[in-house]
Amino acid sequence: MIKAYAASEPGGKLQPYEYDPGPLGDHDVEIAVEFCGLCHSDLSMLHNNWGITQYPFVPGHEIIGTISAKGTHVKNFSLKQRVGLGWHAGYCMTCHSCLSGDHNLCAQPESTIVGRHGGFADYVRASAASIVALPHGLNAQSAGPLFCGGITVFNPLLQFNIPPTAAVAVIGIGGLGHIALQFLKAWGCRVTAFTSSEEKRKEALILGAHDVLDTRNPVELATAANRFDLILATVNVKLDWNAYIATLRPKGRLHLLGVPLEPLEINVFPVISNQYTISGSPVGSPASIATMLQFAEQHKIEPIVEIFRMDQINEALARLASGDAKYRVVLSGQQ
Amino acid sequence: MIKAYAASEPGGKLQPYEYDPGPLGDHDVEIAVEFCGLCHSDLSMLHNNWGITQYPFVPGHEIIGTISAKGTHVKNFSLKQRVGLGWHAGYCMTCHSCLSGDHNLCAQPESTIVGRHGGFADYVRASAASIVALPHGLNAQSAGPLFCGGITVFNPLLQFNIPPTAAVAVIGIGGLGHIALQFLKAWGCRVTAFTSSEEKRKEALILGAHDVLDTRNPVELATAANRFDLILATVNVKLDWNAYIATLRPKGRLHLLGVPLEPLEINVFPVISNQYTISGSPVGSPASIATMLQFAEQHKIEPIVEIFRMDQINEALARLASGDAKYRVVLSGQQ
Repeated sequence: MIKAYAASEPGGKLQPYEYDPGPLGDHDVEIAVEFCGLCHSDLSMLHNNWGITQYPFVPGHEIIGTISAKGTHVKNFSLKQRVGLGWHAGYCMTCHSCLSGDHNLCAQPESTIVGRHGGFADYVRASAASIVALPHGLNAQSAGPLFCGGITVFNPLLQFNIPPTAAVAVIGIGGLGHIALQFLKAWGCRVTAFTSSEEKRKEALILGAHDVLDTRNPVELATAANRFDLILATVNVKLDWNAYIATLRPKGRLHLLGVPLEPLEINVFPVISNQYTISGSPVGSPASIATMLQFAEQHKIEPIVEIFRMDQINEALARLASGDAKYRVVLSGQQ
Repeated sequence: MIKAYAASEPGGKLQPYEYDPGPLGDHDVEIAVEFCGLCHSDLSMLHNNWGITQYPFVPGHEIIGTISAKGTHVKNFSLKQRVGLGWHAGYCMTCHSCLSGDHNLCAQPESTIVGRHGGFADYVRASAASIVALPHGLNAQSAGPLFCGGITVFNPLLQFNIPPTAAVAVIGIGGLGHIALQFLKAWGCRVTAFTSSEEKRKEALILGAHDVLDTRNPVELATAANRFDLILATVNVKLDWNAYIATLRPKGRLHLLGVPLEPLEINVFPVISNQYTISGSPVGSPASIATMLQFAEQHKIEPIVEIFRMDQINEALARLASGDAKYRVVLSGQQ
């Protein structure tokens, strides 16, 4: 039996919950959970905001742990090896995206917390293709958020071959944005943070931003015209997108990583006349995650986390919901 | 004196008009106009729809002719050489875009018909950087539309390195779309035309489409889910963009070439989960135009045109405005 924490209804408190995971699949592994990050999508799922949550619901998809069991066909991992697991716990492995290395765009992916039970538990199961070995130089306690928030902000740099000569802005200095600033600084880019918080202005400069612009100051936004090659938008609220697009250079890209529920409203004329691009992407493939981890190890990039014990799960969720966490919340397991 | 046809007010009839172009600039050429295409943007400019028209207004920016005079610094063209001139008659030559070969994205470009007089005339002036030699294998009578409509649909294939293995759809089979189908067929792509016209369905198949989908049939649109790598939208009306985006494969691109006046309304969730791109582009650079002309010559790609004499200019404009022209209207000059 796996001992987990589950909610029995939308928005319900998490309570101890045991389940039988059944026999381990040939291509699957079982991970003894050491640490598990909390992500905003755990909160969205807890409240069934996307209409896909199944109860009892065990959140947790930023998992660091060691392999406690493995299926007969698992070749590239060994027992006790430390690995991480993110949003996806399985892929169809045979669609065009999977066969092209784009497992994160799989047509029928298995989420770690949709139709499965997540990492707020002593053990969690996943397919071997979906886990990635943790490099020794990374801190296990803070590495979990790299597997969801980290790869989300890192993947566009890979996908679009962003050069170190690019001028890049990050909208929103929070759980995703604070990792993005670190990656972009190490990538060699000229980095600008958009924030309306005076406190975060200082932190952004420490995290890697060369410049900080106040999003609530229309003059600062206007002076940034024709300045950025790439804007990474990490927020999930509606913004005046056309004002941000006006800060792009010709051929510039506005790339969305957070999901505002309202449709984008984009004026077409500037997009055509300046050859702008608007795009979005989810988490990354296992290969991209491995590349990211290597880069993070090399450049000593580390999510900033607040640690709670696994049995403090409800406090930890409240802390995340408050919006005050600096910057990710991680649960420490008993393994 | 240059003998032209000009409108003296918004929407006014074109009437004979003479003007003194002044001394020829060192880097400029004068072209004796043989043919000049009519483009929808000539109509928009005639009616001052974009608020930038200066009267008297001489339209015409799809010009084929021979060099009748050249400035002292013009190195790569000779007198009597046949050339073409499109939307741009000059560039700043020193902005980052110009210096990068992206003259079409110049920060301070000179349009052939904004603040200058266009090709509905016996002669027209332009900077040598903005004209392109016409390959001998191209038909001078029909080549004019390549310099605006043609390069507009061809340029995205260059800009985004579209591979011949791509499945590409074209929305709108008109002045731009009928050239796009020919280019895409020659490019090696699987080509689909979106049209609501039964007559154009047949023509699209002749022009290069492998498949035709009826835009007014929601069932046909729905069956096209997950089918295209690229959609070229050549229309300037508002469409249900989210329905077209749903026909893209993961990593697919919706690329806009026509300018709908209403903002795009795009649902973010599918864009993020499938790593979609929405983009746009205007005409191309002189280097891209030269590449296009070579490709058109090699593959015998030719706009389909209706020819009018230059003194039938008002009839020609009415024909264009009717929307019935198949597919571009070209004026034949007296040179």
